[in-house]
Amino acid sequence: MGGFTLDKSFSDLDKMVKGWMKEARLKILKALNDEIDVWTKSGRNDLVTNIDKEIENFYIEKIHHFDSEATIIGEETFSNDDLDLNGVTWYLDPIDGTMNFVKQKEHFATMIAIYENGCGVRGYIFDVMRNKIFWGGPDIGVFCDNDRLTPPINTSLRDGLIGIGAPYLIHNFRNLQKVALQSSGTRIYGSAGIQILHVIEGKCVGYVSYLRPWDFAAGKVLAETLGLSVKTIDGKSLNMLTSSDVLVATKNAQKDIAKLVKKS
Amino acid sequence: MGGFTLDKSFSDLDKMVKGWMKEARLKILKALNDEIDVWTKSGRNDLVTNIDKEIENFYIEKIHHFDSEATIIGEETFSNDDLDLNGVTWYLDPIDGTMNFVKQKEHFATMIAIYENGCGVRGYIFDVMRNKIFWGGPDIGVFCDNDRLTPPINTSLRDGLIGIGAPYLIHNFRNLQKVALQSSGTRIYGSAGIQILHVIEGKCVGYVSYLRPWDFAAGKVLAETLGLSVKTIDGKSLNMLTSSDVLVATKNAQKDIAKLVKKS
Repeated sequence: MGGFTLDKSFSDLDKMVKGWMKEARLKILKALNDEIDVWTKSGRNDLVTNIDKEIENFYIEKIHHFDSEATIIGEETFSNDDLDLNGVTWYLDPIDGTMNFVKQKEHFATMIAIYENGCGVRGYIFDVMRNKIFWGGPDIGVFCDNDRLTPPINTSLRDGLIGIGAPYLIHNFRNLQKVALQSSGTRIYGSAGIQILHVIEGKCVGYVSYLRPWDFAAGKVLAETLGLSVKTIDGKSLNMLTSSDVLVATKNAQKDIAKLVKKS
Repeated sequence: MGGFTLDKSFSDLDKMVKGWMKEARLKILKALNDEIDVWTKSGRNDLVTNIDKEIENFYIEKIHHFDSEATIIGEETFSNDDLDLNGVTWYLDPIDGTMNFVKQKEHFATMIAIYENGCGVRGYIFDVMRNKIFWGGPDIGVFCDNDRLTPPINTSLRDGLIGIGAPYLIHNFRNLQKVALQSSGTRIYGSAGIQILHVIEGKCVGYVSYLRPWDFAAGKVLAETLGLSVKTIDGKSLNMLTSSDVLVATKNAQKDIAKLVKKS
């Protein structure tokens, strides 16, 4: 449990976290000019680089300096799924879309989320190459840099573009090929953060993929703040300690998709 | 057949065409603030807008002013597949990725290509929202704005990201699901021009989709100039008057894919 409570100045917190992320962005941009060390994790297409590790450690150091007892769940350091989510928990994804980072040098994000007693308080998704930070929480709304976002229109599946994780689409998990065919089109960008930003901005009506808590923690705060649905495919609440299928969608698209998916 | 020959000043030609496209971009940006009229063409997800038509007419007027006898093959006006491709032919795609234009207001391109006696002379792909124009031809190389592009590394399928048209992936056309699974990952951006730019920039090793001549004419010039393969899935030359499956890829990825696809 973290040693601070979030009833202190939120605007100071936002300024501080965004400051860390801007510093992280400069480190990442610098790294793009150097040789990057790449290792595989769970499989040949699950990558980690020295930069993921460096940025995660940078964030951990900053958080611990701010709150020495903080609970931190980071992509590159998380090993304990028996954590207590009471109090304040920080979720870190230093580079979301590491494959894009390595192969494309764009279409990736650095993400931080803050939860208190299991509820989302703040999400921050920084599209590094576009140099735009999306951030906010339920008490203040969602912003892109300094501009407030309006909630996206509650578009139906048929009238919108849908993001689907490639393995889910290829293997027709839960009948998601039918979901794709009922939509206006499928988009695959290769980063959960970038995909969720497209839903938040109303550029896609949904995104469904197999995700880990740090993949969706920040996006969940922002999406729910804007009135979007963030649940499992079956409409269940997400467990903030385990991986699962995750559907971020407009409420109408969520209903349309629920009618099409097969029982698991 | 066009009434001019391309042995005149190419740099004047480039300046002129890029000037038209910059003017077209401003019209498109202005249109994004207004109500857009949308109609369907071959199916509910094949869209055309008043802006596609306006920009195509704008280009046609400019080309005819420059060369009153030019042969023009434009997405919104083409009806005759019995054309003579001797002499100079212009290919126009006023907005490539119209669905993205309508739903996302980004990830679309305006494209022009010039062929002489069936051979690519110039390709111009303008990523409208990134405000970057990719252009060039076999005699001068390929540029992004004023920067010369180096040919992408000849990466194999296994080590690169692959773009696949969503219908091809969902229906496993010619075994393309296996191609996707052998790659480092699948990316679907919803615009042939944007997908081909990713191959040209070395951000994907290939792109395969069902395309019409104006979808691939400009990309073919740029990709071939950089040493990439632009053929049908079976390695046949493309007919510049008909739609077909098209594979733009590094030479190594093209060989890898040829081994995986099933006979048609």
